[in-house]
Order: sequence, then C-alpha cells, then structure tokens
Amino acid sequence: MCERKTDYAFEMACSNIRYGAGVTREIGMDLQNMGARNVCLMTDRTLSQLPPVGVVLDSLTKHGVKYKIYEDVRVEPTDKSFKAAIDFAKQGHFDVYVAVGGGSVIDTCKAANLYASHPEAEFLDFVNAPIGKGKPITATLKPLIAVPTTAGTGSETTGVAIFDFENLKAKTGIANRALKPTLGMVDPLHTLHMPSRVAANSGFDVLCHALESFTALPYYLRSPCPSNPINRPAYQGSNPISDVWARHALKIVAKYLKRAVRDAGDVEARSSMHLASVFAGIGFGNAGVHLCHGMSYPIAGNVKTHRAKGYNVEHPIVPHGLSVVLTSPAVFAFTANMCPERHLEAAQILGTDVSSIKKDDAGRVLADTLRSFLYDLEVEDGLSSIGYTKEDIPSLVKGTIPQERVTKLSPRAHTEEDLTALFAASMKLY
Amino acid sequence: MCERKTDYAFEMACSNIRYGAGVTREIGMDLQNMGARNVCLMTDRTLSQLPPVGVVLDSLTKHGVKYKIYEDVRVEPTDKSFKAAIDFAKQGHFDVYVAVGGGSVIDTCKAANLYASHPEAEFLDFVNAPIGKGKPITATLKPLIAVPTTAGTGSETTGVAIFDFENLKAKTGIANRALKPTLGMVDPLHTLHMPSRVAANSGFDVLCHALESFTALPYYLRSPCPSNPINRPAYQGSNPISDVWARHALKIVAKYLKRAVRDAGDVEARSSMHLASVFAGIGFGNAGVHLCHGMSYPIAGNVKTHRAKGYNVEHPIVPHGLSVVLTSPAVFAFTANMCPERHLEAAQILGTDVSSIKKDDAGRVLADTLRSFLYDLEVEDGLSSIGYTKEDIPSLVKGTIPQERVTKLSPRAHTEEDLTALFAASMKLY
Ligand SMILES: NC(=O)c1ccc[n+]([C@@H]2O[C@H](COP(=O)([O-])OP(=O)(O)OC[C@H]3O[C@@H](n4cnc5c(N)ncnc54)[C@H](O)[C@@H]3O)[C@@H](O)[C@H]2O)c1
Ligand SMILES: NC(=O)c1ccc[n+]([C@@H]2O[C@H](COP(=O)([O-])OP(=O)(O)OC[C@H]3O[C@@H](n4cnc5c(N)ncnc54)[C@H](O)[C@@H]3O)[C@@H](O)[C@H]2O)c1
Ligand SMILES: [Fe+2]
Ligand SMILES: [Fe+2]
Repeated sequence: MCERKTDYAFEMACSNIRYGAGVTREIGMDLQNMGARNVCLMTDRTLSQLPPVGVVLDSLTKHGVKYKIYEDVRVEPTDKSFKAAIDFAKQGHFDVYVAVGGGSVIDTCKAANLYASHPEAEFLDFVNAPIGKGKPITATLKPLIAVPTTAGTGSETTGVAIFDFENLKAKTGIANRALKPTLGMVDPLHTLHMPSRVAANSGFDVLCHALESFTALPYYLRSPCPSNPINRPAYQGSNPISDVWARHALKIVAKYLKRAVRDAGDVEARSSMHLASVFAGIGFGNAGVHLCHGMSYPIAGNVKTHRAKGYNVEHPIVPHGLSVVLTSPAVFAFTANMCPERHLEAAQILGTDVSSIKKDDAGRVLADTLRSFLYDLEVEDGLSSIGYTKEDIPSLVKGTIPQERVTKLSPRAHTEEDLTALFAASMKLY
Repeated sequence: MCERKTDYAFEMACSNIRYGAGVTREIGMDLQNMGARNVCLMTDRTLSQLPPVGVVLDSLTKHGVKYKIYEDVRVEPTDKSFKAAIDFAKQGHFDVYVAVGGGSVIDTCKAANLYASHPEAEFLDFVNAPIGKGKPITATLKPLIAVPTTAGTGSETTGVAIFDFENLKAKTGIANRALKPTLGMVDPLHTLHMPSRVAANSGFDVLCHALESFTALPYYLRSPCPSNPINRPAYQGSNPISDVWARHALKIVAKYLKRAVRDAGDVEARSSMHLASVFAGIGFGNAGVHLCHGMSYPIAGNVKTHRAKGYNVEHPIVPHGLSVVLTSPAVFAFTANMCPERHLEAAQILGTDVSSIKKDDAGRVLADTLRSFLYDLEVEDGLSSIGYTKEDIPSLVKGTIPQERVTKLSPRAHTEEDLTALFAASMKLY
C-alpha cells in the first residue's frame, strides 16, 4: 500500500537557507545589498535580552541600516497577538522584515508581513478553511529573513504561520507558499542559549515533523487529484524527496537530541539539531504532517493552568513540541499497519533492533521506542500530567475535527471514535 | 581534514521541481496559469520527432497556448549554436520559454532567455571569467520551464549553461543563479525513449556529479572567504546539505544505472535515474564539481573524429557524460588521500566491500570499483579509444587551466604536471 506508484505528481518547493556559525553577523550587509531602508525586526521579550538579537542589532548599526524593533511577540501566538503585530507592521510601512526567534516569532512576522501587504484584507481572509476563508494571496510580500533560534519548527523553510484561535480553543494557521521566508539564516550559535526544556520541546517538534512526514499518506494516494496543477496543495503527502529529508532529520535526532538537551554547551549536538530542524522543515513543508500535529492544536488551545518548565512567560502554555509528542506513541501504534516497513525503519533509526520483529508488531515497537525515548528525556507522563482528564476528551476531539488539512494526510482513515481512543491512550505514557 | 568545522557559511539555493509520470501533459495549463501569450519551445531535431515534444505540443494546442518552436539546438552546443538560438529568441519577443530535451536543449534555452532579456549585451559579457567577463545579470529573465528528457545533467535544477567555445577548443559556460529554471518538470516517461548509450552517458554524468560534489573541497576550506555574502559563489564546496543529495543520488545510480542502460523498458530503473539526476543536480549545483568536469571540457572540445554510438548527430562529439567519466578512476585515485573516508564510502555504495580496506588504499579501491562499473557498461577503453594520443595531452592540459572555477574545488591542489599525469593515466582503463 505504501509503495504503489501511479500516474500522479508531486512538487518540491524549496527554501533558500544559509547555514553557518556566526552567519548572522553579516545580516546588515545582506540588508544593505537588498537596499533596505526601513526594516522591521521582530522578536520576543526573552530573546530581546539575549545574544541572538544583540548580534543582529550590532550588525544593523554597523551597516547603518534603519530599523524598528517589535518585541511583543507572544510565545505560542494567538489571533490577538498576531493582530497586534499586524497593526505595528501596517503603521511602520516597512520594506524588509527580519524575524529573530523561534516559531512563535517567525510565524508572527510572516502574518505581519502578509496583512501589511494586504491592508484591505480581513483577518479571516487568509486563514485556512474551513475556519477561515483560505483566499489566495495576490499582493507581493516584502522580503522576510528568518533567523531561527530554536531547533525547532523549521518555520524558516515553510509557508505556514500557526496561531491559537482563542474563541475556538484550538490552533489553526495560514498556509501559502507566498509566506515562505526569502532567506532562512541559520546560525547554530543562537541555539546555545536555549534552556534545556526549550531544546527538548523544540527537538520533539523536529522528531514529529520527520516521523509524520515519513509516514504521511503517499502523494499518489492523496485525494482529490487536482485537475489544475495550481491547486496542488503544499501538503501533498510523502514522496521520494521529502523522504530523503525526513530520514536524514530522524538520524540526526537519534544521534544528537539527548546530548543537545542535556548539555547546552555541546556545540556539535546543538548545531546538528539546528540543521535537522531545517531538513525536517523542508520534508514536512512538502509532504505534510498528520495526526500528532492535528491533535496537538486543541491540546495547546485548551490549556488551563499548565506552566511550562523553563519557559519565561506569564500565561499558561503547552509548548508546541510537547503538545505534538505526547500523542506520538498512540498515533504511530494506530497508523503502523498502513506502512509497517516505514514504522519499523523509524524505530530502527531511533535505536531499536528490529531485525526479528514481525510487521504486525511495527506499531507496538515504534510506540515503545518513543516512550522510552521520552522517558529518558524526562517528558511529562502524558496528557494527564499537563492537566487533562477524561472529561476533556470530547473538547479535544472537537478541536481536532477542523484540522482536516493536516489530519487527512494520516495514512489511516479515522473516525471521531478513533480520535477519542487516541487521546485516551495518551493520558499516561509510562 | 574533510570534517573540520569553522566559522564559515554555506547556502542552499533550491529549485522548484515537479516530478511525476505524465506530468508534462498538464504543461499547457501551467502556461495558461502563468498568462503566457507567446511561448518559445526549444528542442533538438531528434526530440522534435519523439513523444516528449509531441506531448507538450498537444497540451499547448489543447489549452490554446500560442508558441513558436525552435528545433535547431545543437547536441553539445557551441558558442555559434548558442548565438543562433539567441537570435531566434531576440526576434520572437517571447514571454515564457519551455525547453524540452537534454542538457544541450536546456542550456541553450537558458542562454537564449538571458541574452534576449539583455539585448544590449555582448556574448562574452556573462560568460565565466577568465574566458568571458562574468558580469552580473541585472535584467529579470522570463520564466523558463525545463522538461529534461535525459537522466541527466540536472540542468533543470542549476543556474549553469555550458557550451563549447570553438576557438578555445574547450567548453566553458555561464553560471548565475538567475539562469535557474522557474520550474523543472520531470516526467520520467520521457526517459523511456533514450537510446541505450544516451542512458549510459547521461547516467555517468549523474555518477560524476554525485562523486565530485561529495568529494569536493569542504565549504569551510574554500578560499577566498567572501567579505560580502552576495559574493559567495554558487559552487561553494561540499556541505552537509549537498552531501545528503550526493549520497542519495549515488545510491540510486548503484542500484539502477545498469538496469536503465540495459533495458529501455525498465520503467522503475529509468524513473529512478531521472530522479537521481535531479538529486545530483541539486547537490552539485550547491557544492560544485571538480576535476572530472574540469578535465572533460577540453576532452569534449578537442574532439576530432569520434562518432558517439547511438547519437543521431552529423558532427563528431564526445558526449558530456563520457567525457567526464573517462578520467574518473584516475581522478579519484589522485584525490583520495584528502578524504579517504568519503572515497571508501562511495566505493561501498557502488557495491565494493570496504570493511577491511585501509585508508591508504581508498583511492585504488574506488578507482577499481569505477573501472569495473564502466567495463560492465561497455564503456570505451579510455581516452585512447576515443581518438586521443599522448601527443594531445599538452592541449588537453592547456584547455583545463582556464576551468579554475570548477577545478579549484578539487580537494587536492594540483599542478600542470599532475593534470598531465591524470590525462596520461586515463588513456587506457582496463
Ligand atoms: N510555521 C511552521 O511551519 C511551524 C511548525 C511548527 C510549529 N510552529 C509554531 O511555532 C511555535 C513554537 O515555536 P518554537 O518551538 O520555536 O518556540 P517559541 O518560539 O515559542 O519559543 C519558546 C521559548 O523559548 C525562548 N527561546 C527561543 N529561542 C531561544 C534561545 N535561542 N535562547 C533562549 N530562549 C529562547 C522563547 O523566548 C520562548 O520563551 C508554535 O506556535 C507552533 O505552533 C510553526
Ligand atoms: N547546465 C548544467 O548544469 C549541465 C550539467 C552537466 C552537463 N551539461 C551539458 O549538457 C549537455 C549534455 O546534455 P545531455 O547529456 O542531457 O544530452 P544531450 O542533450 O546532448 O542529448 C544527447 C542526445 O540524446 C538525444 N535525446 C535526449 N533525450 C532523449 C530522449 N528522451 N529520447 C531520445 N533521444 C533523446 C538528443 O537528441 C541527443 O541526440 C552538454 O553540453 C553538457 O556540457 C550541463
Ligand atoms: Fe510542528
Ligand atoms: Fe555534468
């Protein structure tokens, strides 16, 4: 099933990435080369005190580049926080955007650039249907340089911006190739500042991007088959190019994530994870993610009181990477029968000897591999330990339903009962 | 030496690729989506009689797209044949270019688009220095859709156009990101028409793109280190991203090239090689190639009487893939000591058991692996069998000197004496 070939196409849309230790020191020169006269620098209040932003500011000053700074990005942004950034962007009439931060900052900056370039648009116009209107983007956006400081979302490679829609209690987003940053400037030195839990959670995001895009419905089984190529979605299912990225990212996660979490000074491990986040981003940006991400959106959106360790924020949050990884053992146990070879290969890359494992056991084995991986990294023991009870499951299921854009890429079709069972199975992990 | 990390950056510039059996049937719709009103379709006289061009023409007609066809592309183009195509393009005032063919067609079309967009420019203006002036490209080129029919040059992914400069008796080219096609439409069905020797020779090109980019000088050892990022060359040395592409392309070559050459009806093998040519193209487009390619340019340019088997052309040629692969055993024996692990890994991917081989023997082992690979594919026995004698070596060396743009990416520095020895060692292979 997973390997059938048909007369069906896939696209590889790729991103311009510059990678190198210290590479952001040159950013002022890049902005000069672009003729930037009025730059919008977006970040959050933690990063604005740290070297990643300091280095950029020094370079702007050195090269005489004029800028305004917006440091009010909300960690785990909401529709409200997106709108505040959009207002700032509209007033500033900027000609280039620079986002220095994790996914929260980069996504906010993408949205600010988009709506400032479309001043007449209403907020819901570009938000993914069925929640928003999913209208096409017609204006040309301003250039955006993304400088990721987590390892991470891969947002520097994707045309996606995610926010928590507070009324709905679930995340949704804007997905359009036009949002893709002009350049991702990936400077691994910036990741040395991440607190250990940020390294862990953003690393789990990389892990799930890789696992989900690797096991996503193959591109030739996706439906509907668009009659005009212009309608082919960005999330087109797993394909031989995204597979290359996903496998490679998974290998790096297997080798380096534990080291990167345990020792902030392990430059090799943190640098490697930074590159893995780019690889996994390109992979899922072309193939898509599925159930872990689809189910994560209400897990993040329904948060009540959970205070994330190591996150310097005022409001309760479930960090994105944590919200995706907590359901991963249940999800891959559920999907394994559709392409057991890939689930076994993933387990093997993550360090399990699968040589004598039967295909029927692929799901159990990958789930066990993930559980012990998470246990070693001291991850909370399931949804129950971040404040959810059985009574919350109906709302979690309800918040997953509108995430069809991603969940339909699950290799296994699923009902509301299946989702209920997956949330229930994720209440405790160990 | 090969793995030292320094404070140095590399870039990944990527290409938009659409891959799928039958995907060119949609091309008329793409052109309509782009608003094309006057399309230039370039091809050569062999292909113009074959289905790859037929399918495109049918699609243009079906969607009412107006076009003019240019079928005079020279196989292994020259400055003269480039100029003829440029004249056609200038007179046509086209708004979109479509190239259906191998590297010869795609490269010619890139040049035609470039000079038609720069009507005031002289031919040498954009040709690589020191042969040409290497001027920056300032105009915006028209969109170009490349439909590769060989597997192949990877020209659909690169900003490079190569031609034989007849006065110099050596190939040179134009290298600029602006030349990169807007979209590579990779339809593996087209490769089913390749004669066996075209499949072999274009497959050797893939092999050498992968091997050379995998063993190229690492990006952090390249000199000079540009002081402004805008001056970073496209060929920047091997790096962790190009490595992913190179390794993967090599694996496909190892698995499928022989099958693709021996059985034109082996769809799996020919399709896989078509994808490998894309992968290797992205790899070398970012990392560069080195000695096999640098030395191939005079090997092709000095051709006297060699008639390439299976090529339906009037003039003597050494097909590009043959001209690169004939020196490969000598080249990798020469470069191996600079990064023996990579040479051994390549030999292993190509099927040799290297578990008990010492590092010092890496060059010999990879060279032997290549020789037996070429022998199995009935490749001519060295430069002597395509008409060269010892007396020609000084001209071959002389034609290699100006290819510094690529040869400087060799992991091992080399003198004229070294080049002389490499040509001499390539006279006979078996
Ligand atoms: N656009 C996409 O393709 C995509 C993909 C996945 C996730 N996301 C979204 O991205 C967001 C999560 O982003 P994230 O995981 O990168 O984390 P984040 O941006 O939310 O940052 C998490 C915390 O770490 C801090 N931080 C970030 N980098 C730091 C550094 N180098 N040193 C010290 N502190 C640092 C931040 O200030 C913040 O407090 C979520 O909203 C998620 O939905 C987007
Ligand atoms: N731009 C780059 O990045 C790049 C890279 C490598 C090589 N090149 C250049 O590309 C050229 C070689 O291109 P190539 O190897 O693709 O071959 P080609 O374009 O020269 O074609 C070789 C022969 O095969 C025929 N042919 C091609 N496709 C066919 C098909 N599907 N069915 C039947 N016949 C077919 C052609 O008509 C021609 O006779 C050289 O000039 C080389 O220097 C360019
Ligand atoms: Fe994610
Ligand atoms: Fe080549």
